[in-house]
Amino acid sequence: MRVVDIIVKKKAGLALSAEEIDTIVQGCTRDQIPDYQVAAWLMAICWRGMNEEETANLTLSMARSGDLLDLHDIAPITVDKHSTGGVGDKTSLVLGPLVASCGLTMAKMSGRGLGFSGGTIDKLESIPGFRGELSLQEFREAARCVGLVITAQSLELAPADRKLYALRDVTGTVDSLPLIASSIMSKKLAAGSDCIVLDVKVGRGAFMPTLDQARALATAMVDIGRRAGRRVRAVLSNMDQPLGQAVGNALELVEAIRALRGQGPADLVELCMQLGSLLLQMAGRAQDDAQARQMLQQRLESGAAWDKFRTFVIHQGGDPQAIEQPERLPQASLVEPLPSPQDGYIAAIDARQIAQACTDLGAGRANKGDLIDHAVGVVLQAKVGDRVARGQPLLVIHANDPQRLAQARDTLRESFQLTLEPVPRPPLILGVI
Amino acid sequence: MRVVDIIVKKKAGLALSAEEIDTIVQGCTRDQIPDYQVAAWLMAICWRGMNEEETANLTLSMARSGDLLDLHDIAPITVDKHSTGGVGDKTSLVLGPLVASCGLTMAKMSGRGLGFSGGTIDKLESIPGFRGELSLQEFREAARCVGLVITAQSLELAPADRKLYALRDVTGTVDSLPLIASSIMSKKLAAGSDCIVLDVKVGRGAFMPTLDQARALATAMVDIGRRAGRRVRAVLSNMDQPLGQAVGNALELVEAIRALRGQGPADLVELCMQLGSLLLQMAGRAQDDAQARQMLQQRLESGAAWDKFRTFVIHQGGDPQAIEQPERLPQASLVEPLPSPQDGYIAAIDARQIAQACTDLGAGRANKGDLIDHAVGVVLQAKVGDRVARGQPLLVIHANDPQRLAQARDTLRESFQLTLEPVPRPPLILGVI
Repeated sequence: MRVVDIIVKKKAGLALSAEEIDTIVQGCTRDQIPDYQVAAWLMAICWRGMNEEETANLTLSMARSGDLLDLHDIAPITVDKHSTGGVGDKTSLVLGPLVASCGLTMAKMSGRGLGFSGGTIDKLESIPGFRGELSLQEFREAARCVGLVITAQSLELAPADRKLYALRDVTGTVDSLPLIASSIMSKKLAAGSDCIVLDVKVGRGAFMPTLDQARALATAMVDIGRRAGRRVRAVLSNMDQPLGQAVGNALELVEAIRALRGQGPADLVELCMQLGSLLLQMAGRAQDDAQARQMLQQRLESGAAWDKFRTFVIHQGGDPQAIEQPERLPQASLVEPLPSPQDGYIAAIDARQIAQACTDLGAGRANKGDLIDHAVGVVLQAKVGDRVARGQPLLVIHANDPQRLAQARDTLRESFQLTLEPVPRPPLILGVI
Repeated sequence: MRVVDIIVKKKAGLALSAEEIDTIVQGCTRDQIPDYQVAAWLMAICWRGMNEEETANLTLSMARSGDLLDLHDIAPITVDKHSTGGVGDKTSLVLGPLVASCGLTMAKMSGRGLGFSGGTIDKLESIPGFRGELSLQEFREAARCVGLVITAQSLELAPADRKLYALRDVTGTVDSLPLIASSIMSKKLAAGSDCIVLDVKVGRGAFMPTLDQARALATAMVDIGRRAGRRVRAVLSNMDQPLGQAVGNALELVEAIRALRGQGPADLVELCMQLGSLLLQMAGRAQDDAQARQMLQQRLESGAAWDKFRTFVIHQGGDPQAIEQPERLPQASLVEPLPSPQDGYIAAIDARQIAQACTDLGAGRANKGDLIDHAVGVVLQAKVGDRVARGQPLLVIHANDPQRLAQARDTLRESFQLTLEPVPRPPLILGVI
């Protein structure tokens, strides 16, 4: 089978067979097919799309391009969670301990933050001593002992994805639904969990700006999981404004700790309940949403979720005193409120601009490998729908550099829209698939 | 300007500026842009197309990627001719001497045959001593002295075309109208002639199978020429069956010689008259078609066209005795008629299959660089619309190898369709643009 014939077939709008897709994916991964042919093929996919079967075959081929983890020696059922990336999204820090305290085993490989989107490992590494990069053996052992492990990828899962993504990035072929869905799901399938819950973010601070696009992506990913023999559910959640109040690594960790102790912001807690409920139901630990939520609520109130988090942090080398007394976490030297310029209601908080300001402060990465400052960020004091008086703080800025603070202040001021008329609070959960 | 942004712009269906197109073309030619970006861009062009202005800008950018010939020191007006490639197409061998004998200067760079399509240089190299590869200085001198020169490209005109074509060939991006039109016209513009006549072939033995496609290509090329300040006309000519009777290098040369001596087959002569008339009119040597044809006819009858051909051959080193006594040209050792299996009328002669059979005999190249046998080929004894009796030869095969002869015989037999009902002779000229 000649590669050019496979390109021409997709270019003509025809569906490719599993074998044809595998020829390109494995050939690309092993550098046996030149990048220019892969690039033309990727553009032809952007043009013609892929049907559900092709998308699933592409994902499976990418998953098989490297090692496939099998976690069944650790637990009969393991669970995983993936977010498409948002601003202030510390959900995994709460959800992981919460479902692990219900007896589920979550063995999660996580990314670092890039661009506007934060990374769970970065947040955990705010804890002195915390080891965010475990060996595969340590990863398996932690999952077995604790029931919860979160680490940066210790081995390269789905190496085809890294190759294809690097090529997509420089050839203008990023924004294709089958390519996005297969990129995410190939790594999740390779990571070996039986039940996967997806949090597909929608809005200004997300990769998918519209609900229709987010729903299409979620549906495609759930379908891939089904065809791959996994249980997959997806939640569509609002990401126009940041989730919760804190944006920035240590600041988000502190908010997650408060949530695990029963004092979390309502939207963060609700999202964790929704995602946790789906995981418990998929794993067969709860019959329905009501029963699942009752279990989760009980684990929060009893302190079991918090205990699980503490055990998890200690097992990965983190200092327990730092999470018990968060003032021991990295602290910013400059803490300054941003006052409201007027009386009114918050009509919008642009999550993308908030993220930009936090990156400017040093909390995020413009490029892979950039160093980050764990202490800096912002803590919102009001959210969309809230009433504020003139001079009352909209948020508090945590900075370590006066110039960066000044720059961020302007961006942050612009990210708020105020109005004189009352504004309804926007819904958080936009759909479940 | 980032290359990926140019790719994304075309992918979105927007028109590219001259500067954006030039960035990619010159960057590709100088190996400053990786092939995978160029490949993605080419596929995006296949997807979204290019408007007339973009296509002209692409062509000019490709023409400027190497040397641009200026022939105005040789003659105030020079003419050129291009065929999109066909079977039995020896037109240039007749047209060149014909218009040169009318006082026009034709300085033509020509390709070699590849696949089903023959090459003028290959046909001329059937003549012992003929030099088909001149230096640029020899090319200019021959044009000045004789008024006619035909040579393989002695310097690389429009090197961007070679790079882009090689990439298109392996990325499934050959069949795009703006890419085809710019590929042809970039070389013609770089070759420096003021007046260009294009022979766009339509049918089984052509790159463009339908009249609509051929008309679109011809229109695009004429428009490019207009925007580049050249005079360009195009003829759409039928290539369902071979042109004339002979297919094969020395055999076609013999037919061209007969045409120059007033004994050519009607279709070949008519096509030369049509193309020559357009060149004479574009160059201001004739007021209208009638006057032009009268001039051309006179040059054939007076022997002036033949004399010009003889001078041209001698000037490029060819043995004049070989063209005066064609039995001195390469001769095949096996000459065998293919008898008609029945009484009837010729309904179709598949030019593509005839070409395949001639390539099998050794007349053509499957790959660049293959050696060819100048002697072999076929000479049709009947054409579409002719009545034949059972046993009467449909064509005569000229071969040098019994096995190849046997293989070609089967293909040739299949290339004829006979019917009992009379069949009208198909029109040769399908349009003039």
